[in-house]
Amino acid sequence: MSVAAAIAVDAMGGDRAPGEVVAGAVMAAAEGVHVLLAGREPELREHLAAHGTVDGVEIVAASDVIGSDEEPAAAVRAKPDSSLVTACSLVREGRAQGVVSAGSTGAMMAASLLRIGRIRGVLRPGIGVLLPTPASPCLLIDAGANVDCRPEHLVQFAVMGSLFCEDVLGVSRPRVALLSVGEESTKGDARTVEAHGLLVSADVHFVGNCEGRDALTGEVDVMVTDGFAGNVLLKGLEGAGAALVFELRQAAASGLRAKVGGLLLRPALRERLSRTDPETYGGAYLLGVRGLSVVAHGNSSRTAIRNAITYAARGVSVGVVERLTERLAGSDLREPAPTRTVSHVADRPMGDP
Amino acid sequence: MSVAAAIAVDAMGGDRAPGEVVAGAVMAAAEGVHVLLAGREPELREHLAAHGTVDGVEIVAASDVIGSDEEPAAAVRAKPDSSLVTACSLVREGRAQGVVSAGSTGAMMAASLLRIGRIRGVLRPGIGVLLPTPASPCLLIDAGANVDCRPEHLVQFAVMGSLFCEDVLGVSRPRVALLSVGEESTKGDARTVEAHGLLVSADVHFVGNCEGRDALTGEVDVMVTDGFAGNVLLKGLEGAGAALVFELRQAAASGLRAKVGGLLLRPALRERLSRTDPETYGGAYLLGVRGLSVVAHGNSSRTAIRNAITYAARGVSVGVVERLTERLAGSDLREPAPTRTVSHVADRPMGDP
Repeated sequence: MSVAAAIAVDAMGGDRAPGEVVAGAVMAAAEGVHVLLAGREPELREHLAAHGTVDGVEIVAASDVIGSDEEPAAAVRAKPDSSLVTACSLVREGRAQGVVSAGSTGAMMAASLLRIGRIRGVLRPGIGVLLPTPASPCLLIDAGANVDCRPEHLVQFAVMGSLFCEDVLGVSRPRVALLSVGEESTKGDARTVEAHGLLVSADVHFVGNCEGRDALTGEVDVMVTDGFAGNVLLKGLEGAGAALVFELRQAAASGLRAKVGGLLLRPALRERLSRTDPETYGGAYLLGVRGLSVVAHGNSSRTAIRNAITYAARGVSVGVVERLTERLAGSDLREPAPTRTVSHVADRPMGDP
Repeated sequence: MSVAAAIAVDAMGGDRAPGEVVAGAVMAAAEGVHVLLAGREPELREHLAAHGTVDGVEIVAASDVIGSDEEPAAAVRAKPDSSLVTACSLVREGRAQGVVSAGSTGAMMAASLLRIGRIRGVLRPGIGVLLPTPASPCLLIDAGANVDCRPEHLVQFAVMGSLFCEDVLGVSRPRVALLSVGEESTKGDARTVEAHGLLVSADVHFVGNCEGRDALTGEVDVMVTDGFAGNVLLKGLEGAGAALVFELRQAAASGLRAKVGGLLLRPALRERLSRTDPETYGGAYLLGVRGLSVVAHGNSSRTAIRNAITYAARGVSVGVVERLTERLAGSDLREPAPTRTVSHVADRPMGDP
C-alpha cells in the first residue's frame, strides 16, 4: 500500500506498549506510511534502535502517560503532555491526519473531541467496530461511545458508517440495517421505531431492521444501534466465541480419540479463525472527529498496530473525513451544534431518553 | 420426577405441532405430570392413539389456531377458541397451574396477561431464558417482553429471576448482576445507572454490573436487563454459536487431514455441546403471571416439549407463583398497578424512556 499520509501514534498506550507499538510502527513505515510516535523519548529511541535503520518513523517527545483506569475527560485535561494528548494534538496542528492508540477507548474519545474536535454537523461521534463474517466485515456502530442516544444520532451513525464502508473498505452501496428485536418496522423500543422512520428517507441504502443474530452472517454491511445495545452485543459475541473455544478445547482433551482428532483438525480451524481475528481490522474507528481516530485492542500485537496504522492511512488517502464533512453538510439533520466542548462520553448526560 | 401438577399445553403451537407436542406430552405424563392438551380434537386423538394406551393426558377441544405472524393482542382477542387461549383459560379456571406453548412468544404473553393475569404487585411480567454455562445456567431476564423499561421494572425482574433460580433451579443465594457496558456503578445508560442504585438496596444478592461477555461464563446466576438489550444479546449469542459451528464445519471439510480430525473429534464435541442445547431447559419462562407460562422454542422436538412441561410442573410443585406473590407483596415497590388489562407487549407504549 502506498499512501502519503502521516499518522500519529500513542506509543505508550496499550498492554504491550511501547515495544509492540514501536514494532508495528516500523512495519507500517515500511509500507510507506509516515508515522509520528508520541511518547517517552529515551525509551522509544531505544526500542526503535533495535529495528536498525528505519525510515519514516519520527519520535515526538511526550513525558506523561494516561493509565487505563483514569477518568477519561479529567485525565485528558490534567495531562496535556501525555502520549495520547500529544498524538491527538499532532492531528490538530496538521502534522498528522489520523491517530492510533491501543490505550483506553474513553480517553481516546475524550482526547479526540478535546484536541481534534468533531466534524461540523456531527452531533456525536460514534465508535465503529468491524465484525468478521464469511463475506465482507460488518461495521457495528455505535459500539459503546454513546449510551444514551436519540433517534437522530442513530441516523448519523448510519450515514457515517455507510460512508466509511464505501470509502475505506470499498463496499459499493453498503447495506445499512437498524438493530432491533424483530424485522417489522414497528418492532423495538421507542427510539428504534422512530429511528427506523427517519432512516427510510435518509441518504443511505437502508435495508430495514436486523437482529443480533445477523451480526456475523455477512448479510449486513452497517449495523446501526445505540452505544448501550451495541456494546452489549459486541461483548456478547466475544463471550460466545470464548465459550465455544473453551468447549472445543475441553472436547479435544476428553480422550485419546478426541485428542488426535483435535490435533488433526487444528491447522485448518486455525486458518479459518484467523480470518475472524479482531486484530485483522486494526480496531475500532472513531467516526465523526476531524481526523481519523483508531482505537486498537488493548493487547494489540505489532501486526495489529501495523494494521491499525495502515487502515488509518487508507482512510486519510481516500479523504474519508472530507467526504464525511461534505455528506453531513448536505444531510437534513439541522440540529444546532452542541455548545459543550466535550461530549457525553467524557461527561455523560443524565436523563437523556 | 413425581409432581401433582396439571399443565395445560397449546397442542397446535410450534413448527412441529401437533405431532411432536403430543409426543412430548405423553413423555411428561409418563413422569407423573397431568397434561391437558388444547387443540383440534380429532387430530389430537389420532396422534395420541399412535402412542398406545396413555394415562394422564386429557384432550380439551379448541377449534382455532393462532398463526405465528398474527398481531398478538388482536389475535388473542379475536380467537377465544384457539388452542393457546383455551390452554391459558384452563389455568384461569384452576384446571391447570401452568401452561406451555411452542407458538409465538408475543401471543403467549398476550394470552397469559389477558386470560391468566399478572401477579398482584408485578408491574410487568418478564421473559426469563436460561443460558447454558459450564456451571449452572444463567437466567437472562428480560429477554424480549418489555422493550421500553423503567429502572423499577429492572428491579422486579431481578426479584422474580432470583426467586425462580432459587426455587425452580435450586440455586442457593443466586448472584444477581445488572447488564451494562462496564463494571463501575456509573457505567451504562441513564436507566441502568438508576437501576443499579435501586438494586443495591433490593431484596436480592446483587453482585453489581456485568457485561455481555459474562453471559456464558457461569459466574452470574441472574442477568437483569431491559427487553431490548436482552433480546439483542440473546440473539447475538445464538448468532455467534451458529457462526462458529459454521467455521468448524468448513474447517472439517477443508482436506483429508481435517476431515479425519473432525470425525474423530465429533462425538466428544457433540457430547459437550449437548449440554448447551437450548432444548434442555424447556424454553423461556414468563415470570410474573398468575400461573407459570413456558414458551418453548418454535421448532421444539418432543424432548424439548417434555422438558418444558416438566419444568413447568416443577415450578408448580415448589409453588413459585405463590412465593413470587409473597415476595413482591413484601417489596418496596409500591407503584399503583397499571389499569390496562393487557400490557405493553400487546399494546406497546410510545415515549417510555
